[in-house]
Amino acid sequence: MPHDIRVLTETQLRGAVGLDMATVQVIERAFAALARGEVIMPPILSMDLEKIGGEFDVKTAYIDGLERFALKASTGFFGNAALGLPSLGGLMMVFSAKTGQVEAVLLDNGYLTDIRTAAAGAVAAMHLAPVGVRTAGVLGTGLQARLQLRAAQLVRPFEDALVWGRDPAKAEACAREMAETLGVPVRAVTDPADLVAQSQLVITTTPSRTPLITADMLHPCLHITAMGSDAEGKTEVAPKALIAADTYYCDRVSQCRSLGELRGAIEAGLWDRPDPPELGQVIIGEREGRTEDDEITICDLTGTGAHDTAIATHVMDLLSGGDVGTVVRT
Amino acid sequence: MPHDIRVLTETQLRGAVGLDMATVQVIERAFAALARGEVIMPPILSMDLEKIGGEFDVKTAYIDGLERFALKASTGFFGNAALGLPSLGGLMMVFSAKTGQVEAVLLDNGYLTDIRTAAAGAVAAMHLAPVGVRTAGVLGTGLQARLQLRAAQLVRPFEDALVWGRDPAKAEACAREMAETLGVPVRAVTDPADLVAQSQLVITTTPSRTPLITADMLHPCLHITAMGSDAEGKTEVAPKALIAADTYYCDRVSQCRSLGELRGAIEAGLWDRPDPPELGQVIIGEREGRTEDDEITICDLTGTGAHDTAIATHVMDLLSGGDVGTVVRT
Repeated sequence: MPHDIRVLTETQLRGAVGLDMATVQVIERAFAALARGEVIMPPILSMDLEKIGGEFDVKTAYIDGLERFALKASTGFFGNAALGLPSLGGLMMVFSAKTGQVEAVLLDNGYLTDIRTAAAGAVAAMHLAPVGVRTAGVLGTGLQARLQLRAAQLVRPFEDALVWGRDPAKAEACAREMAETLGVPVRAVTDPADLVAQSQLVITTTPSRTPLITADMLHPCLHITAMGSDAEGKTEVAPKALIAADTYYCDRVSQCRSLGELRGAIEAGLWDRPDPPELGQVIIGEREGRTEDDEITICDLTGTGAHDTAIATHVMDLLSGGDVGTVVRT
Repeated sequence: MPHDIRVLTETQLRGAVGLDMATVQVIERAFAALARGEVIMPPILSMDLEKIGGEFDVKTAYIDGLERFALKASTGFFGNAALGLPSLGGLMMVFSAKTGQVEAVLLDNGYLTDIRTAAAGAVAAMHLAPVGVRTAGVLGTGLQARLQLRAAQLVRPFEDALVWGRDPAKAEACAREMAETLGVPVRAVTDPADLVAQSQLVITTTPSRTPLITADMLHPCLHITAMGSDAEGKTEVAPKALIAADTYYCDRVSQCRSLGELRGAIEAGLWDRPDPPELGQVIIGEREGRTEDDEITICDLTGTGAHDTAIATHVMDLLSGGDVGTVVRT
């Protein structure tokens, strides 16, 4: 029984979907579906290819009511830089939720992950950041740092922004570029403590393995979204800071226990409380979000297959009816 | 950094690779690599989509020394028959083991799984069946039953064959077709016990949830390969038969414990022995295979990601240099 499969390249996908409020809402709905138990999401399949300097991760999820679901493969090959190739890559496959047939192959090289991750940051800021964010700060100077500032601006239009990176030259370059992109002053700072002190919204986007934010840096009227920790051994926020905050939120408690900041707090014996609330529970009103502007909140995002299925379904909806891509009949 | 990805359809893949001795040897090498610890193979990622009558399984494995590795998604959607569509489907993605970049998308609709599964049956028969197989019998009348008889003929050229199925009309049809394909007499029988009694090599290929072969049916000079059980709840060989055989072999002990016939024997409290040998250990001479023609052996094959990577790499080798398929530059 022949059927058509659409193959889309990164360029075509970039033309179809971007980081905008429509994308943020799609990701917000996926958080809500997670909290309502409307998602079937097996644990991440992971293959550590140490011998060949590679990592291979596979995520999937089915969301009730969506016509499609996605399977995402992400690659990280750390010898690629020497070959002039990007270290990170991957693709998504889209399946019909009615027949299981493959509908599309999205050769996005990680682009869809980049924007769904940034959009998740916007969802966290929308529900947890103080209403009046004057200054937004980002730790990290890579692509996700840039996207997070853009995402934050969509939901908390700040007056200025700060950037910190381990390499001051990269931080300067990132600040210059983002000032142009965002249309507001952006300054590089050389100390994460300064950045946190001056910001009401902080986003961490580094692959750090030692905490960059410690409990003594916290101050009233602050929200931190920690994006970087998505694997064992990674951490950006000290365990004591999680405890010192008024509330610590997870995207998915089960994942944050093993991959996120919660792992460090549990290992340090500091987490003796019930499960933290999930962001989706805040969205659907099942748990409380920020109630006062002067609270200190932290949200830990490890990334879920539900968001992959959400962004893949969104891009398929945006492309439906059009003829973008290569059609292969099989 | 643009690179080319080849997209191949089922028709193109059928033209490139078939069930022959080259394929059997590729699968044999994968078994050997598994036994030598040269394979990184995470547990199967599985999503039970009960609400929509679907199953979704994902396998992957990396084999030392191979230039590529595969990720396979298999779908089973049980409302498809009513839509005139096949219930089973799926595809494979092929990644470079050097850079992690996607090299190819194999839209095989399960064809490569079919032939690597049949080839695994040939490997089991080659190493475990009596040298002189006069009669081969198959339980089941589907595609895999047909392929298993073809695979058996490659390595144990039998004089005649028997087919049993729950539906006698289907068994008759299968027998007629296979007589033509194999060029030897093939008869349908109405009782699995008769089939086992008359055969020296038996292959079971059904989705049965109750045992079809019981201990009392076993006789000297018999090898049974059980292909059907690949999920919890499935079983074709009674736990007591596993114990009564001279030796019971697994493709992968860890998988057979949860998905294969071994599960039933453990649950029944009958398996109080050390781990059974794996087929790959027999191939590399680490464990003993059949030593006498009059032994009774059983081999339990649940299917592994290593075989998916092996067949996908094989087909890429066969196609290298040619221009079959659709090239998408991304």
